Amino acid sequence: MPLTLDHANTLIAAAIKEGETRGFAPLAVCVLDAGGHVQAFQRADGASMMRFEIAKGKAYGALAVGKGSRWLNAQAEGRPHFLEGLSNVSGGKIVPVPGGVLIKEEDGTLLGAVGITGDTSDNDEIAALAGIAAIGKVAVTD
Amino acid sequence: MPLTLDHANTLIAAAIKEGETRGFAPLAVCVLDAGGHVQAFQRADGASMMRFEIAKGKAYGALAVGKGSRWLNAQAEGRPHFLEGLSNVSGGKIVPVPGGVLIKEEDGTLLGAVGITGDTSDNDEIAALAGIAAIGKVAVTD
Amino acid sequence: MPLTLDHANTLIAAAIKEGETRGFAPLAVCVLDAGGHVQAFQRADGASMMRFEIAKGKAYGALAVGKGSRWLNAQAEGRPHFLEGLSNVSGGKIVPVPGGVLIKEEDGTLLGAVGITGDTSDNDEIAALAGIAAIGKVAVTD
Amino acid sequence: MPLTLDHANTLIAAAIKEGETRGFAPLAVCVLDAGGHVQAFQRADGASMMRFEIAKGKAYGALAVGKGSRWLNAQAEGRPHFLEGLSNVSGGKIVPVPGGVLIKEEDGTLLGAVGITGDTSDNDEIAALAGIAAIGKVAVTD
Repeated sequence: MPLTLDHANTLIAAAIKEGETRGFAPLAVCVLDAGGHVQAFQRADGASMMRFEIAKGKAYGALAVGKGSRWLNAQAEGRPHFLEGLSNVSGGKIVPVPGGVLIKEEDGTLLGAVGITGDTSDNDEIAALAGIAAIGKVAVTD
Repeated sequence: MPLTLDHANTLIAAAIKEGETRGFAPLAVCVLDAGGHVQAFQRADGASMMRFEIAKGKAYGALAVGKGSRWLNAQAEGRPHFLEGLSNVSGGKIVPVPGGVLIKEEDGTLLGAVGITGDTSDNDEIAALAGIAAIGKVAVTD
Repeated sequence: MPLTLDHANTLIAAAIKEGETRGFAPLAVCVLDAGGHVQAFQRADGASMMRFEIAKGKAYGALAVGKGSRWLNAQAEGRPHFLEGLSNVSGGKIVPVPGGVLIKEEDGTLLGAVGITGDTSDNDEIAALAGIAAIGKVAVTD
Repeated sequence: MPLTLDHANTLIAAAIKEGETRGFAPLAVCVLDAGGHVQAFQRADGASMMRFEIAKGKAYGALAVGKGSRWLNAQAEGRPHFLEGLSNVSGGKIVPVPGGVLIKEEDGTLLGAVGITGDTSDNDEIAALAGIAAIGKVAVTD
């Protein structure tokens, strides 16, 4: 069973609420299905212009390699030419910093990914985990 | 005052509900702010893969020229070379068929645009009008 | 359950064999998963240089809108500006002629798509149908 | 004599089998002809979304300079601006890490290249060597 729109909306609402509770800057939250296509997105009031593209880029990168975007961040630090090549063959669709988290079933089935941006990358990831917890799925950050 | 996220979410929920009530195929609904940047998006369960790009392309085209995308459709039929040039200078971001509708205040202030896809272009536009009505704003279709 | 690699290889072998049996020109056959990502591809000896891109473009277009690429072909004839916009917002990934066929389960679940090129578009589609029949799935051509 | 489709399929099957035997993560294997065009590709079940692009990018980079992609990896570490320029003039088609291996005849004639991704870059290369050995051709890794 793929993620439903209800799942995606619940995830997004919980992530934005988590950011508000913790006093984060306004967040943008993008949910992609397992094939990397946009299922739902919301940008909190006050977030800047290109937040959709950044949020999507984190989630897309995670799906591209089957790891959370924190893994991409480590790759970019250790061998930047790999990340540059990866980004290029993706058509420039990847933002390789934390905040892109895979969404899985308990049995390991991939459901999609969420990407969040607006505060620090570490805080973005915290909001992503809260969102995924709200729908009772498993989060993979690296 | 720009559109809030609450406005965008209310608009999207009303448009999807309108589609369900009328028996349309599953819809995808994208709200862009007045600068053409994504504020919110939802894809109803069962809608096909590339619905985000199509919905956004209708709304983007509307904002590009300050008319609803029904106007672009008429232009494309009457002088296709204009649409081709317009699409090219946009970076290939425009889908010039009905279903992209400007959102304005009563006094004419531009707030953004909504783009909908999933059923016929005419039905997509009907759902857009329902969404804009739900937030008490003015719709411009051509 | 998504298509397995065994399914994809069986489909491709059957499609190429169908082409040989019917005396078609050498075929190229691309299987995409439901998210539009390449699962398997084979280009028969003698097929020309860019056959991968064409085969993938037919299958990608089918998945984009949830119809076989024969539907896209009809759209391109009736309202070319729609196809041009669709192709643009896809990033130039769509080849809107017959030969891209959706692969579904009996219950309607989307599994992916196959795109074939090498002979006439109508013949390409015939080979696609033979391939899908070989794995016992349902084909959608328009 | 160029590589036949039979050669490519045999190479791919042997590479995937090598990965299974050694307990590698699921592999994706792409064979390009000497002109850099896709001849055959298979993605093992469980491999992530963008594996086609990565596998192709390794093989494409190898053909671009007439060396295995291990050589590109060393170049990227020693003079990253060269790889960046090379990647740019390729149109963003190169992934410069090990796992892209040239396929040659004994007499040095270039037949094509194979690119593999899914496990570590070193392990991807091991699988590539097994695939090339299975068709009795010569492998060039750097």
